[in-house]
Amino acid sequence: MEFTLIDRIRERTAQGRDDVRLGIGDDAALLAVPAGQELAVSIDTLVEGVHFPIGTAAADIGWKSLAVNLSDLAAMGATPAWALLALTLPSADPAFIDGFATGFAQLAQSYRLALVGGDTTRGAFTVSVAVHGFVPPGKALTRAGAQAGDAILVTGTLGDAAAGLRLVQSGNSGIDLRSALLLERLNRPTPRVAAGLALRGHASACIDVSDGLLADLGHLCAASHVGAEIEAPLLPRSSALLDLFDEAASRDFALSGGDDYELCFTLPVQHVAAVQADLARIGCGATKIGRVVEGSGVSVRDADGRWLEPVHRGWDHFGA
Amino acid sequence: MEFTLIDRIRERTAQGRDDVRLGIGDDAALLAVPAGQELAVSIDTLVEGVHFPIGTAAADIGWKSLAVNLSDLAAMGATPAWALLALTLPSADPAFIDGFATGFAQLAQSYRLALVGGDTTRGAFTVSVAVHGFVPPGKALTRAGAQAGDAILVTGTLGDAAAGLRLVQSGNSGIDLRSALLLERLNRPTPRVAAGLALRGHASACIDVSDGLLADLGHLCAASHVGAEIEAPLLPRSSALLDLFDEAASRDFALSGGDDYELCFTLPVQHVAAVQADLARIGCGATKIGRVVEGSGVSVRDADGRWLEPVHRGWDHFGA
Repeated sequence: MEFTLIDRIRERTAQGRDDVRLGIGDDAALLAVPAGQELAVSIDTLVEGVHFPIGTAAADIGWKSLAVNLSDLAAMGATPAWALLALTLPSADPAFIDGFATGFAQLAQSYRLALVGGDTTRGAFTVSVAVHGFVPPGKALTRAGAQAGDAILVTGTLGDAAAGLRLVQSGNSGIDLRSALLLERLNRPTPRVAAGLALRGHASACIDVSDGLLADLGHLCAASHVGAEIEAPLLPRSSALLDLFDEAASRDFALSGGDDYELCFTLPVQHVAAVQADLARIGCGATKIGRVVEGSGVSVRDADGRWLEPVHRGWDHFGA
Repeated sequence: MEFTLIDRIRERTAQGRDDVRLGIGDDAALLAVPAGQELAVSIDTLVEGVHFPIGTAAADIGWKSLAVNLSDLAAMGATPAWALLALTLPSADPAFIDGFATGFAQLAQSYRLALVGGDTTRGAFTVSVAVHGFVPPGKALTRAGAQAGDAILVTGTLGDAAAGLRLVQSGNSGIDLRSALLLERLNRPTPRVAAGLALRGHASACIDVSDGLLADLGHLCAASHVGAEIEAPLLPRSSALLDLFDEAASRDFALSGGDDYELCFTLPVQHVAAVQADLARIGCGATKIGRVVEGSGVSVRDADGRWLEPVHRGWDHFGA
């Protein structure tokens, strides 16, 4: 069983990376980090009914389990290299395994990522992925480093995944184009790896938006010992989101919805235009949404200049 | 919730390793592999009722989840350095978390191992650990490399953990010393890290005995394109095992029981005595149990020279 799944992914991602000295099949893999590079490492778990709705397609689960981890590497400005996969399943369902392997491998191939270790066990459905990437010493983006006066930007649009989850919960299977776009954002998030690399040497701090803008920007502020002021009218929202949800709902999704996997980053205001141009050249929009201030915490102002009290402050996957 | 568990382990294992450039708390850890070293990486999952009996103490689960992974590094001859932990729990039980952290940290401290990443989620109980170790290029032990004529050895004693599991299943809680020893072997396996390091440059092939001798030696033979002949009377068995179980049961545990986490290795016969002396100096017994032969598969001979048909060929944690 173990070798079926792992082999299916490996055979779809076989890439002859020089830095994989010994791949899957022994007690451990043997890997060589390139000279002059440090290793960025992260692990994340997806649980059915918590990180994706029950009934999510196997290929989407495979894709997303890797995507959320690659998003962590993106937030550090690291180049993805290797992954480990620990999959626990109630039964060895060949169709599920084939779908999972397909989705995982599709995303892995985009980055020449090698699967270098795996373990499959029988039990309640859980998937943990660990990813490894490279970054030159001292060049990684971190959550610390934001300075009062810096601009705050986000890539792409916010709130789409949370809106997609709302559609699933209300029984909308995404048959029209706008619904399908939101569901795609929920089920097939695109890690902002190229944007993270482009931000090296420019962003003063960076985090990925996995638990919602307010929660994640709050983490960035805490690590940087600063506060943040967000202008709600500047929040980038997709036309699909704005078409299907009213202003209050779409704003709440954009502020507090999780699972977007965009990057939120800070940089000196005089560099904003140049960095936006750099990101545009790699097909990634980036929008200025506010500024870093002295103090602590994240404040949000509406179009009339009134301070808002957000409904949620982000998703906590472990509950209260 | 996430930070409680991870912080509890971290504060019990804080070690100021120079190679951890940025530890837990950002989107990824930043790590520096020492110059002239390759990275050995492995991941393993433990599921309640599969890899440990329901009712196992939290501290034992914490210990074992790390031990089974360190055993993989031991089998490669790698020096442990860093670990990642993904823990899924049905509820945030403080007593469980405290116990788990205690057991995990106790073993981690023995190796100056740093926890560099973690994720805790709510769901059915599952724990996945990934470990990273260092090994000089070309010096790792692998499953391939056994040659016909080599001797086959194992460290320590075999079958104790399987016997301990039988005791648990029959309601024996280990109140006498011999039962307690067997339960300790089941719940607190000692990865043979020092032995793995001592075998570098000597063993022609090596594997850890996690699924039972016959199964794991079978993997070693397959990777080396050889066969193996085992002499059943030579199998090292503890006095606790021999006192509490009859000859047939103890032999079956030693041949097919899982979870011992001893090392099984091969080397040229003329080096056996010297390697046994090396291992004895670090407090690790090693017993010659058979020889590598041309062909394939593992055969077992009893004291009368008859070939045995083993009852089991090892544990498959994913079932059939």
